Amino acid sequence: MKMARENAKDIIAMGFDLNKTFIFHDFDFMGKCPSFYQNIIRIQKCVTFNQAKGIFGFTDSDPIGKIGFPAVQAAPCLSTCFPFIFGDKKVNCLIPCAIDQDPYFRMTRDVCPRLGFPKPALIHSTFFPALQGAKSKMSASELNSAIFLTDTPKKIKDKINKHAFSGGKPTLEEHRAKGGDPDIDVPFQLLQFFLEDDARLEEIRVAYTKGELLSGEMKKIAIETLQPIVAEHQARRKDVTDQVLDEFLSLRKLTC
Amino acid sequence: MKMARENAKDIIAMGFDLNKTFIFHDFDFMGKCPSFYQNIIRIQKCVTFNQAKGIFGFTDSDPIGKIGFPAVQAAPCLSTCFPFIFGDKKVNCLIPCAIDQDPYFRMTRDVCPRLGFPKPALIHSTFFPALQGAKSKMSASELNSAIFLTDTPKKIKDKINKHAFSGGKPTLEEHRAKGGDPDIDVPFQLLQFFLEDDARLEEIRVAYTKGELLSGEMKKIAIETLQPIVAEHQARRKDVTDQVLDEFLSLRKLTC
Repeated sequence: MKMARENAKDIIAMGFDLNKTFIFHDFDFMGKCPSFYQNIIRIQKCVTFNQAKGIFGFTDSDPIGKIGFPAVQAAPCLSTCFPFIFGDKKVNCLIPCAIDQDPYFRMTRDVCPRLGFPKPALIHSTFFPALQGAKSKMSASELNSAIFLTDTPKKIKDKINKHAFSGGKPTLEEHRAKGGDPDIDVPFQLLQFFLEDDARLEEIRVAYTKGELLSGEMKKIAIETLQPIVAEHQARRKDVTDQVLDEFLSLRKLTC
Repeated sequence: MKMARENAKDIIAMGFDLNKTFIFHDFDFMGKCPSFYQNIIRIQKCVTFNQAKGIFGFTDSDPIGKIGFPAVQAAPCLSTCFPFIFGDKKVNCLIPCAIDQDPYFRMTRDVCPRLGFPKPALIHSTFFPALQGAKSKMSASELNSAIFLTDTPKKIKDKINKHAFSGGKPTLEEHRAKGGDPDIDVPFQLLQFFLEDDARLEEIRVAYTKGELLSGEMKKIAIETLQPIVAEHQARRKDVTDQVLDEFLSLRKLTC
């Protein structure tokens, strides 16, 4: 619950509007709104263990809570889970999520029409690469696998300089002659997410591919792009007190 | 929910004290008390599908809700589901139930110590026989299989006279000579539950076994015993208004 609250603060710091945003945590919201659980039960009646096994790869050794969980993930697609916002209206649902969450909502798209609700729609976001490159994994326990929102400017600089996988060539001569590979270069990948100026991004890509831009220079651009973004986020996050968070978590009508 | 409310009114009419009794319905209480759901999740983590299959005979074709349900049945054995009554104290739990509910609580007895709670204890009640006898089944859809708490005195009389399985002999002569069998005689079974006077019950048993008491006479005693009990219940139940029921269902401290 503590970690969920910290994550929610980061989400709010991104700029969500209190008047248009309700944030909830299953574990807590379940005990505050009977409709949520009642919709979960309706969904759980529509999915057999066989189906769940097919979708999620469950085995007989999995705990019964894990087996029932997909319905908890699915239920918020039904607008009647939030009667204080939507009344009993059946509202369309759009889910922004990463591809790993897709199976839950494929199941949900099967179930919704059987319960008289519209199918939810999804937007799949791409994953950030881990600093060590596309083939490695970001991990909270591997501190150098990612830039964290809590990192200082110095830490961002050190992490990118020391740990970000480079698409450059082993020697300066070879790099100047053959050019770097932006497709595997992690500093460049980060710029794709964070550099707003698309024309400049393209210039950087071309210069790097031709060998005009060196790996160290690419890293410097990435560092200088990320440092202010993270610093600004940290500044905004300071204003997200426990009280502000509790307002986002409170059951209320929205004014959108 | 409607049927649950009607059943709860019958339970209250039995004489439960508002100051010592909290009644809840899973479907509704879940949305009013986060601790209930949180305990369910803790239990669901402790039971695998394999175990649930072994205990309840689930198959792969069963819905995931049914598979997760035993934890919903088990959770109220943990006193922390009711913080408004028990605070965070770990209180012993006694469950009066019929034998068909036993598997749920055998599972619960396995799980409780793993969660740091005392094992619940059970008292198993016996089933009433169906009017058609021990080998048949009471059923709400078979109106003549049981005396209902809503039956009129006349209906009770008719049901017992026409439908109650008798342990008497086919002819008067044979009955007088060989006697009846109280062990299969449904009117006598009902008296075992409802006749408070044990000495008189024994007299009836002996007289019936010897053939001194006839089947029709046994039925008459059963009718005259049940009619006032059901009528008194109906009178008490009239006082159990929706408002009274809502008081029993409300989350509050008890004063016992």
